[in-house]
Amino acid sequence: MKILALDSSGLTASVAVIEDDKLTAEYSVNYKKTHSQTLIPMLDAVRGMTELDLGSIDAIAVAAGPGSFTGLRIGSATVKGLGLVMGCPVIPVPTVDGLAYQMYGTDKLICPIMDARRSQVYTGLYEFRREGMDNPAVYSLAILREQCAVSVEEIARCCNETGREVIFLGDGVPVYREMLRRLMRVPYSFAPAHRRMQSAAAVGVYAQVLYRKGIYESAAAHSPRYLRLSQAEREKLEKEGRV
Amino acid sequence: MKILALDSSGLTASVAVIEDDKLTAEYSVNYKKTHSQTLIPMLDAVRGMTELDLGSIDAIAVAAGPGSFTGLRIGSATVKGLGLVMGCPVIPVPTVDGLAYQMYGTDKLICPIMDARRSQVYTGLYEFRREGMDNPAVYSLAILREQCAVSVEEIARCCNETGREVIFLGDGVPVYREMLRRLMRVPYSFAPAHRRMQSAAAVGVYAQVLYRKGIYESAAAHSPRYLRLSQAEREKLEKEGRV
Repeated sequence: MKILALDSSGLTASVAVIEDDKLTAEYSVNYKKTHSQTLIPMLDAVRGMTELDLGSIDAIAVAAGPGSFTGLRIGSATVKGLGLVMGCPVIPVPTVDGLAYQMYGTDKLICPIMDARRSQVYTGLYEFRREGMDNPAVYSLAILREQCAVSVEEIARCCNETGREVIFLGDGVPVYREMLRRLMRVPYSFAPAHRRMQSAAAVGVYAQVLYRKGIYESAAAHSPRYLRLSQAEREKLEKEGRV
Repeated sequence: MKILALDSSGLTASVAVIEDDKLTAEYSVNYKKTHSQTLIPMLDAVRGMTELDLGSIDAIAVAAGPGSFTGLRIGSATVKGLGLVMGCPVIPVPTVDGLAYQMYGTDKLICPIMDARRSQVYTGLYEFRREGMDNPAVYSLAILREQCAVSVEEIARCCNETGREVIFLGDGVPVYREMLRRLMRVPYSFAPAHRRMQSAAAVGVYAQVLYRKGIYESAAAHSPRYLRLSQAEREKLEKEGRV
């Protein structure tokens, strides 16, 4: 199965091609350009470098939200367009789950934190659990707390209640590093630079798991999952006195 | 500190730029083209996409061997040329250590295996150890067995003697999967596609650790570490009756 994976949910724009058990290519850029300027040129670079026939793609995986509203729209618009033309399904990967998949192989709890502004983070709590006792062992991502938009205090409390060591990653780390220092009561660490941010390779590999569970949709039906109202929607409701 | 990292030691060609705690870009391709066709165009793509001024690079990290002899020469020639022009040092990262750094965050033993032909693998044995008891925790790569060229039987025996769970990665996994099934007596698993192969991001992040330990050299002094004789050298010695 050949998967094209895209992640433009955060600061990093990322494109990957995965064929079964092989990562054919990954291209990730965390730079000030907007994803509308980078995502398609990056995909085109990967296409050229790997002589990729887009018609051979079986499914498109995308970080489907939460995240930057503009980033999610760029990602979703891109996969909807590609999916319609290529006639293949879209595998919507929850953004925070995809981030957690960066830490495959750890025995610690995994807590991605993305800066969601307004004193909130997009976060969740995960661990990799061994499936059965056969060898070679296979690990699957277990969701202890589903992705959500909450305060750092709340997710820190949730981590502390487990009593277990936690590894944090995501663009919320530099923003909330000092606050976590004060809040954390259990051992914790921060993922290093090469595991810190979104990666389309992680999204694409996890998408294979979701696809086998029947989690995919048509390009026409696909839309991003924002988890919160956009600023415009929120301000409209506030103006109307409805919140 | 801004690091340009390159890895062309194996099937995957990979380029990354890391600035302190931030991965600015990574571009990795595992495709049939030779690295002489891909590495510089990939570097140029990253340079353009991130508006990178090569003069701002403080050091160049490279997977310095072992690996494909041709691949290592392409990587070393590239960093020697760039390093001479840019006037910056080269951080030679042992290839197998760089591969092990892919698995940052795991509590298992890490055993990279690269197919070295002639019934051998380039391999080593590693774990991440917590430094001190402070929080946030910092983990450093501990080398239990230094990178070497040995038979799969020998590294499997070495793993079995530890009694601990092992995670294998590298291009040797598909080649030696069935043999490991027969040989392994301890629990083990294989890294998934997004952690399986060389990554310049892992090389670059680990290079920061080596640089702080004073491990770097001039571009002029740099040369790859093959670990074994090349086929031509071996055949010459055999012809001369010296082996």
